[in-house]
Amino acid sequence: MIRMDELSGADAAPRRGRPGYDAPTVLRRAVDVFNRQGYEATSMGDLARELGLSKSAIYHHVPSKEALLAAALDEALDQLAAAIDEAAGDQTSAYERLRTSVQQSVEILAEHLPAVTLLLRVRGNSEIELAALKRRRVIDDKLANLVRAAVDEGSLRPDIPPELLSRLLFGMVNSLVEWYRPDGPVDVSDLSRSIVDLAFDGLRTRDWHPPPS
Amino acid sequence: MIRMDELSGADAAPRRGRPGYDAPTVLRRAVDVFNRQGYEATSMGDLARELGLSKSAIYHHVPSKEALLAAALDEALDQLAAAIDEAAGDQTSAYERLRTSVQQSVEILAEHLPAVTLLLRVRGNSEIELAALKRRRVIDDKLANLVRAAVDEGSLRPDIPPELLSRLLFGMVNSLVEWYRPDGPVDVSDLSRSIVDLAFDGLRTRDWHPPPS
Repeated sequence: MIRMDELSGADAAPRRGRPGYDAPTVLRRAVDVFNRQGYEATSMGDLARELGLSKSAIYHHVPSKEALLAAALDEALDQLAAAIDEAAGDQTSAYERLRTSVQQSVEILAEHLPAVTLLLRVRGNSEIELAALKRRRVIDDKLANLVRAAVDEGSLRPDIPPELLSRLLFGMVNSLVEWYRPDGPVDVSDLSRSIVDLAFDGLRTRDWHPPPS
Repeated sequence: MIRMDELSGADAAPRRGRPGYDAPTVLRRAVDVFNRQGYEATSMGDLARELGLSKSAIYHHVPSKEALLAAALDEALDQLAAAIDEAAGDQTSAYERLRTSVQQSVEILAEHLPAVTLLLRVRGNSEIELAALKRRRVIDDKLANLVRAAVDEGSLRPDIPPELLSRLLFGMVNSLVEWYRPDGPVDVSDLSRSIVDLAFDGLRTRDWHPPPS
């Protein structure tokens, strides 16, 4: 797989006569364009325009659209996989490990928002996308196993299948990409705490019951 | 706005020598292509290929890509808006009206999956998309007001801002488009009941508490 560290000519120092970009900047700005107008609909010409480069100069900085996609998807997947594996090693209940996994997923999503947004939109239209979907499925399976272990230990409700609980829980977490903005009013640690509390304890006030109709 | 009922030449009966399609079939198959490869990345040529028509014959069935997009977005928005307005008229607690709204949203999403999927991916890249986002915002505001009314009546937790509760709740509902398939093993009425129960009562078994560490 083509990796970001193989991007050639992505110099940290600007050269005379044309803009110079380091690899993280090229990646960040390309991912913004992919998220704004869709990866499929983005051409090398669009990336050149975004970076203020000519159509011929863009190939000096970017070997291919696919290399940028692969680098962004790896960024998101590496972070998520590491967090899940770290939480799995904790010597606590499945309940606590799941709470930690949810909290850390929210924080990674907030900190790596553009890369995770791109990951969540991947549909499997190329080898790179299929490889990313495969890695994502491994992560999702680990999370579903953790939910199942928590149901088995008696800490999570047994009346809804664990697979469905897992999908809905992480569906809620992942929906953040639709509205969360790092420069917005919602603090990420407040957010992760709120999501964990809401997911585990629900919307309803414990002692409230609907009045008889 | 261009509407599906203005699509010209979308005949119900096939003509000799070329495939004939009624308007709902053209719309359904076009929306499938949009969802599969992205609306922006879909050309009239792609739609012609999907329908087995030549590039010149496609214009006999489809006035424009935009007309199909508008028709699909209206389908989703009309259904969602009607359900919310109907639930709002119920003479019950905000709690009950919110439960009904969540349940009906799940059912509409399942029944109109392709159109709702397209709606949820709209980014505002054209007049049609901006108009759809505006209608969607009206619906989202009504749902957020309902959540706020439920917090005010004491039925929903007051420790998380109502706007955030509303975003997370409907983020969970909308995440169904990522995995729900009408021909899959999950029954829609089981699904809507599970989502409502999970959202209001949470994952945790009521009488379970983590063991002291």
